[in-house]
Amino acid sequence: MASGVAILGSTGSIGKTALRVLSWLGDEYRVVALAGGRNWEELVRQALELKPRVVATPYPELAKKLSSALAESDIRVAGGPEGLIEVATHPQADIVVSAIVGSAGLLPTMRAVQAGKRIALANKETLVMAGGLIMEEAKRSGALIIPVDSEHSAIAQCLAGHRSEEVKRIILTASGGPFLGFSRSQLEKVTPEEALKHPNWNMGTKITIDSATLMNKGLEIIEAVWLFGMDIHNIEVVIHPQSLIHSMVEFSDGSILAQMAVPDMALPLQYAITFPQRITSPVAPLDLLSINNLQFFSPDETTFPAIKLTRRAMGMGGTATAILNGANEVAVEAFLAGKISFNDITTTVEDTLDILGSSPANSLEEIIASDAEARQVALGAIETLESNRAS
Amino acid sequence: MASGVAILGSTGSIGKTALRVLSWLGDEYRVVALAGGRNWEELVRQALELKPRVVATPYPELAKKLSSALAESDIRVAGGPEGLIEVATHPQADIVVSAIVGSAGLLPTMRAVQAGKRIALANKETLVMAGGLIMEEAKRSGALIIPVDSEHSAIAQCLAGHRSEEVKRIILTASGGPFLGFSRSQLEKVTPEEALKHPNWNMGTKITIDSATLMNKGLEIIEAVWLFGMDIHNIEVVIHPQSLIHSMVEFSDGSILAQMAVPDMALPLQYAITFPQRITSPVAPLDLLSINNLQFFSPDETTFPAIKLTRRAMGMGGTATAILNGANEVAVEAFLAGKISFNDITTTVEDTLDILGSSPANSLEEIIASDAEARQVALGAIETLESNRAS
Repeated sequence: MASGVAILGSTGSIGKTALRVLSWLGDEYRVVALAGGRNWEELVRQALELKPRVVATPYPELAKKLSSALAESDIRVAGGPEGLIEVATHPQADIVVSAIVGSAGLLPTMRAVQAGKRIALANKETLVMAGGLIMEEAKRSGALIIPVDSEHSAIAQCLAGHRSEEVKRIILTASGGPFLGFSRSQLEKVTPEEALKHPNWNMGTKITIDSATLMNKGLEIIEAVWLFGMDIHNIEVVIHPQSLIHSMVEFSDGSILAQMAVPDMALPLQYAITFPQRITSPVAPLDLLSINNLQFFSPDETTFPAIKLTRRAMGMGGTATAILNGANEVAVEAFLAGKISFNDITTTVEDTLDILGSSPANSLEEIIASDAEARQVALGAIETLESNRAS
Repeated sequence: MASGVAILGSTGSIGKTALRVLSWLGDEYRVVALAGGRNWEELVRQALELKPRVVATPYPELAKKLSSALAESDIRVAGGPEGLIEVATHPQADIVVSAIVGSAGLLPTMRAVQAGKRIALANKETLVMAGGLIMEEAKRSGALIIPVDSEHSAIAQCLAGHRSEEVKRIILTASGGPFLGFSRSQLEKVTPEEALKHPNWNMGTKITIDSATLMNKGLEIIEAVWLFGMDIHNIEVVIHPQSLIHSMVEFSDGSILAQMAVPDMALPLQYAITFPQRITSPVAPLDLLSINNLQFFSPDETTFPAIKLTRRAMGMGGTATAILNGANEVAVEAFLAGKISFNDITTTVEDTLDILGSSPANSLEEIIASDAEARQVALGAIETLESNRAS
């Protein structure tokens, strides 16, 4: 029987790639539920083509548009946070692709974990904000969380067949983003347009800016801690501008396994969907002979303080990583809106962390409250930065 | 209880490294039998230090010297082919390190396989000459064959946790040896001294010359066919001059796993001895940050015809790979003795294959007879090459 698939974030970059993968995987998988974003027309197109049982939108005002566009189908339309949860916990969904960008993905992903689904996890905020709670619930429900980030997928592939005692270090590779080698004063002047031009990957805007600040890599460190049960001190970041080695694992004997592939999110998505099997993919394989240079550098953590900030937040524990994440989301938006400079993104995050510190993260409610508070404080910090600049 | 280890070829490069590994592995392993080569004084030193039950030499004239040197110990001395077999099948040996260079390693390794030992296989001629028979016997006896060649160890590590249907290609990396980029006319003039200077690895003389001709890589293709049950068309050779990626596996989904480590045979030896566990090793880990260039090229199979020759021999089947191997051993010796040119090594092998063709390889006797015949024919081909040059 076909496996049922629910997609949270089907109209985004990852969601659309997941649908492309499912289309070539064929009859063994069936889309049963979709939740889309602002692009409701795209969600309608997907729904009419794939005929899921339910489509959902977090935006109540779009639910009506969806309902009227799908009036002649028997597809149910669900709106608001409950709509997302309905998609995440749909009884016919065996696999939930969690690809809503940002903290909005947290609650539905938690519900999918509690429902014991297999989660193809592309929403890294889930683990950044609530890694401890999520892994606890997964253990309880038997949910299997398989990462979709190319780095964590690479690590999962390198770890296959090994015991955790044999692992010495995880080495996360980072492209370094479009501003590799820039100084702080050069960074001060970069525009959102420049920051959105990623050298190797074609991704959504939030993650592209996070790649430019290296915050993305910082968030990935936190994600790796939770996914692989690793001590944060044994997770290292190496700049690898070619983005062909997606990450590595160093074992106790000094041997390193590295995973390489063309930079196409279809591959980690397929791996997460078909796990533990690997099956043929139409993605063109990596042409090793076209590679004439693979490089590895240490990240410049003074110019790009995001990695240090995330290590600090992880050290603070509790809600600190949720605060870091919430402040970063607000700061990225402010940068994209032209309100603050590129360097101000991490300054905003740091200021917010300084102001709020951390508190215990024993429930999703506490975490969500910290996220909201962090956003408020970050907005205040941004206003201060703006007025300082204006004066 | 400690695992018993027997070493075939304990006074050679691999054998000595195996003893170094066993010394740091400590009490969990105990050397119970050693077979050495011409350097009988070294074998005496090893015996007096490690106190095995038996030491052996294939050379009857050295057995007496060993006996008198070890007269005051209770270590048994065994000489001749039976001595090697006694070491290979010692009842207290759980693990047999097969590190005798060349075809002399075949018979004792076969006996160890038949005795159901775990084999740490460094002698590649065993599989090149008699891969079909060896794998059949291993299946029957339950012997586990774990490769020690850095390339095959890398492949075994990349394959861990995967099913064979998921494997698309094996990619053997080759340093290219000291003559990478040379033309046929440049190769015609290279000396044994130049050929013995390998850029990355410190190895025995036979394998160093084989690395320079790329015959080593050809033999490794054959070895990989047998070890991993791969179709030869799915085994590719890529020149990687830095010798840091020791080999790779491409999976059905287009993902590639690569194994990297410092070029030190202690690592694959330790992996083979402690398999399926990995344990801490004192070998300095690979410093990724010191790598600023990893390159990959296609081999030049016109200038270096060895890979084509081995593919041809494998296609011929039966005794052809034993003939190729025997002719190559004789030709390498003739080159080292200054009798033939570097290019003549593969010419000799090709001539011998042309003359002898292949016959069925249903028994070790047939294979050993073909090997002897190949050596005779190769010696004849070498004489012809010498007299042609003299005239």
